[in-house]
Amino acid sequence: MKNILGREIPEVIEGYGKVKPFEGAFANCGIAEKKSVKVKSVIPGDNKVLANIEEALDKVELKDGMTISFHHHLRNGDYVLNMVMEAIAKKGIKDITIAASSIFPIHEPLVEYMKKGIVTGIYANYMSGPVAEAISKGALKRPAVMMTHGGRPRAIESGDLHIDVAFVAAPTADTYGNLNGTEGKSACGALGYAESDAEYADKVVAITDNLVPYPASPIQITQIFVDYVVEVDSIGNPAGIVSGTTRITKDPVGLKIAKMATEVIEASGLIKDGLSFQTGAGGTSLAVAAELKEIMKAKGVVGSFAAGGVTGYIVDMFEEGLFRAIFDVQCFDLQAAESFKKNPAHMAMSSSMYGNPHNKGAVVNNLDVMILGATEIDTNFNVNVTTGSDGVIMGGSGGHSDTAAGSKLAIIVTNLVKARLPIIKDRVTTVTTPGESIDVLVTERGIAVNPRRTDLIEKLKETNLPVYTIEELKAIAEKMTGKPEAIEVSDEIVAVVEYRDGTVIDVVKKALE
Amino acid sequence: MKNILGREIPEVIEGYGKVKPFEGAFANCGIAEKKSVKVKSVIPGDNKVLANIEEALDKVELKDGMTISFHHHLRNGDYVLNMVMEAIAKKGIKDITIAASSIFPIHEPLVEYMKKGIVTGIYANYMSGPVAEAISKGALKRPAVMMTHGGRPRAIESGDLHIDVAFVAAPTADTYGNLNGTEGKSACGALGYAESDAEYADKVVAITDNLVPYPASPIQITQIFVDYVVEVDSIGNPAGIVSGTTRITKDPVGLKIAKMATEVIEASGLIKDGLSFQTGAGGTSLAVAAELKEIMKAKGVVGSFAAGGVTGYIVDMFEEGLFRAIFDVQCFDLQAAESFKKNPAHMAMSSSMYGNPHNKGAVVNNLDVMILGATEIDTNFNVNVTTGSDGVIMGGSGGHSDTAAGSKLAIIVTNLVKARLPIIKDRVTTVTTPGESIDVLVTERGIAVNPRRTDLIEKLKETNLPVYTIEELKAIAEKMTGKPEAIEVSDEIVAVVEYRDGTVIDVVKKALE
Repeated sequence: MKNILGREIPEVIEGYGKVKPFEGAFANCGIAEKKSVKVKSVIPGDNKVLANIEEALDKVELKDGMTISFHHHLRNGDYVLNMVMEAIAKKGIKDITIAASSIFPIHEPLVEYMKKGIVTGIYANYMSGPVAEAISKGALKRPAVMMTHGGRPRAIESGDLHIDVAFVAAPTADTYGNLNGTEGKSACGALGYAESDAEYADKVVAITDNLVPYPASPIQITQIFVDYVVEVDSIGNPAGIVSGTTRITKDPVGLKIAKMATEVIEASGLIKDGLSFQTGAGGTSLAVAAELKEIMKAKGVVGSFAAGGVTGYIVDMFEEGLFRAIFDVQCFDLQAAESFKKNPAHMAMSSSMYGNPHNKGAVVNNLDVMILGATEIDTNFNVNVTTGSDGVIMGGSGGHSDTAAGSKLAIIVTNLVKARLPIIKDRVTTVTTPGESIDVLVTERGIAVNPRRTDLIEKLKETNLPVYTIEELKAIAEKMTGKPEAIEVSDEIVAVVEYRDGTVIDVVKKALE
Repeated sequence: MKNILGREIPEVIEGYGKVKPFEGAFANCGIAEKKSVKVKSVIPGDNKVLANIEEALDKVELKDGMTISFHHHLRNGDYVLNMVMEAIAKKGIKDITIAASSIFPIHEPLVEYMKKGIVTGIYANYMSGPVAEAISKGALKRPAVMMTHGGRPRAIESGDLHIDVAFVAAPTADTYGNLNGTEGKSACGALGYAESDAEYADKVVAITDNLVPYPASPIQITQIFVDYVVEVDSIGNPAGIVSGTTRITKDPVGLKIAKMATEVIEASGLIKDGLSFQTGAGGTSLAVAAELKEIMKAKGVVGSFAAGGVTGYIVDMFEEGLFRAIFDVQCFDLQAAESFKKNPAHMAMSSSMYGNPHNKGAVVNNLDVMILGATEIDTNFNVNVTTGSDGVIMGGSGGHSDTAAGSKLAIIVTNLVKARLPIIKDRVTTVTTPGESIDVLVTERGIAVNPRRTDLIEKLKETNLPVYTIEELKAIAEKMTGKPEAIEVSDEIVAVVEYRDGTVIDVVKKALE
């Protein structure tokens, strides 16, 4: 069958099950059910602190076929997923499904576990590095499931993704399972991606390298959700956790794109008191923040909130009074983590509060402006940030689809040509975010507005910005690069791309070697 | 049938249903289930702010036979319950069950609604004043259900108590339903009793007199739980909310009892680093805190946490460094509310985290010392704080049973004789808290230790404290007062007293006029 975007998808995918086809960004909202949860009562005198991960595996009765979850606040510095998997492999347990909010190059040991059948399923919102490449080459028994940052808590809370055991990497834990990310040598700030896991998994094990006396303070995940606590030497490499390396681009092309994107925002009329804003941590996206900052200051505008994975640039704007609040699901750098710790209005949000479409209103619903990247975009404004143009998985939605759906003005900023390939295609290799959610594409050579946004097209006519149709922009690019060849892939499905509501927006086929 | 305490209880109570008899404080722990919840998705552009309570009743489709809930942080200053009920009565809706965490004299209008069949059921953890008296006289169609502060969230989360619509009195709300109790003219501090309601009710309506632009900061109850927001002129009378009137007793008898109770704590060996402590806001209980404070200072002891409904006395101890943290479910006075706002280690806890026995460990489980009052206590140490000796409801467990069950040392402080009646009985009028949870009774004439605590009996032998058996203390009292007459009640059950695990520990019979 074909879904509403014309993507060819089987009705049933082996190892995944029956497909609910994508039907539009808000087609599947309405009444949603949060699943029932079983909890083992802890009574006075019970002890939660265990000697090591092996004991925890025994206590939670981990066995073949189970699904275990991890969160990615420690990013490419995370030791916890690998430590737990090593212990599982040693015990001879197999057929494990890993539900990680994201997978990074540091998780390379998974490749061997996949080949040996120890790991047979993977859920992730984003994956890069050896694991993503191995999946693309068919190393995983069942198709990987790619979700969004808001779709993952939706799936967990609804029961679509049942977690047997959640392992929560905790920069600080007390002896009764109260956790925070603000204290300890592995401090990472917010813990937003771990909250649904803690609330809905059958069992929850906190793994910490900073075990403190009861009670920890502050508390981000409370004792009522945590079954056991294990202390280890180190949960992560600080250099990989909060890198401090988010930087505004110095590339003149990127700066030009950022300037144009900011002019689009200004023309939209959204730069006024109450403005809400989010941007990714890419160099061009950050440059938009820098441009916006100057305009807000010049106009004396006080925004309502900035959200996201948060960087120091956003913290600077907040601390200069340009936003009243920050909603933070994850801190991207040390400055963000510091601010999260000290500024009361720099507030935590769970990934469910951030982007779950089946809540009573996620934070993304209140976003005015969202700055996003793209690997590819097609003439229907569908965006791919999941696979490269070679068809190999190198990313995933993360919050891309969530913020695009929620925001009033979702702007894609990208070079028109990358690595000698035009980014505008007739058909993207993989659809991550549907075109209906994207309002504007800004490239160094010109701007294209989604035809649905007739209001914005009118407003941009009053500016000197170089506005084209997306087909025109595509032609400009292809004049430089020639028409790219279509990539060849096999028929084997290696990954299912779920939209935030749990429908299937696309599939990823096995890449040819 | 009789439950394990020998209380005569029917197997089925009309208007309540099948009785699960109380079987012991921790007999019903194990695997507990949190119920599934249905949520109406809110999509971008949806508006949550409604014009008035009437519109909210329409939106949530309030109708005959529904259960609606309220929390009691505004205490005897609360306007919200009465406002909502007035609107319901005007619409001609009837047969409403009210699940309020507590009911105060200000809620007197309920008496008329009960008589007219508009209100036919009441759940509360505590009730005093005209409503309690009317229930005792049989004015309510179905028996009232008395719960504990930890038992109420257990019942809500398990589905035993299904709430159709929760009305949350919010000192501050933003336009998307983020709530806090720290800002606004009706600021009350913590909102711990409202959290389970917000998380598990079918619909949630916030009622505020301080509607602020999005987002509110801080956020205690988030937008993902709130369907609608209504702004009204005033949610409560500040004089009744945080009264600032909690005071240490000046009565020499009370001070003597407090001094002896503190000597018991000292003899128990619990006054050492890491000590955790809770006390009610009664004058004698607060005097124990004052005594304990001096000992902690003299010994250089740093406690782990104080918990509870929090008073300025506890805040003083915390701010002097005698406790590392405070867990706060409700602020009892202005000083507590101020501290809750400014001190990061003065932390909120939901009533579920406070006392729910079917969680992965409530805060009460970690209490060392708990100071409690009693209206009556029997020779098996069963305590009544639900009814007066005349059988009329004048209180209820609140956190009495929860903290007694969780703490290592639960001390009852009370005068041996009150209003010329001895407080020690052969059989208390109503059992609120089972004797197995009570460790010591301290009166001005002597101390009785629960025979189960042989360790403590040994320790007290090394002191000069006047230790008796509880039968001996009873005899001392009766020598002064004579043996009191048994009260007469009818056979009609007007209230069912649930233990924190949902079993029935006792019933209250209709008082004779």
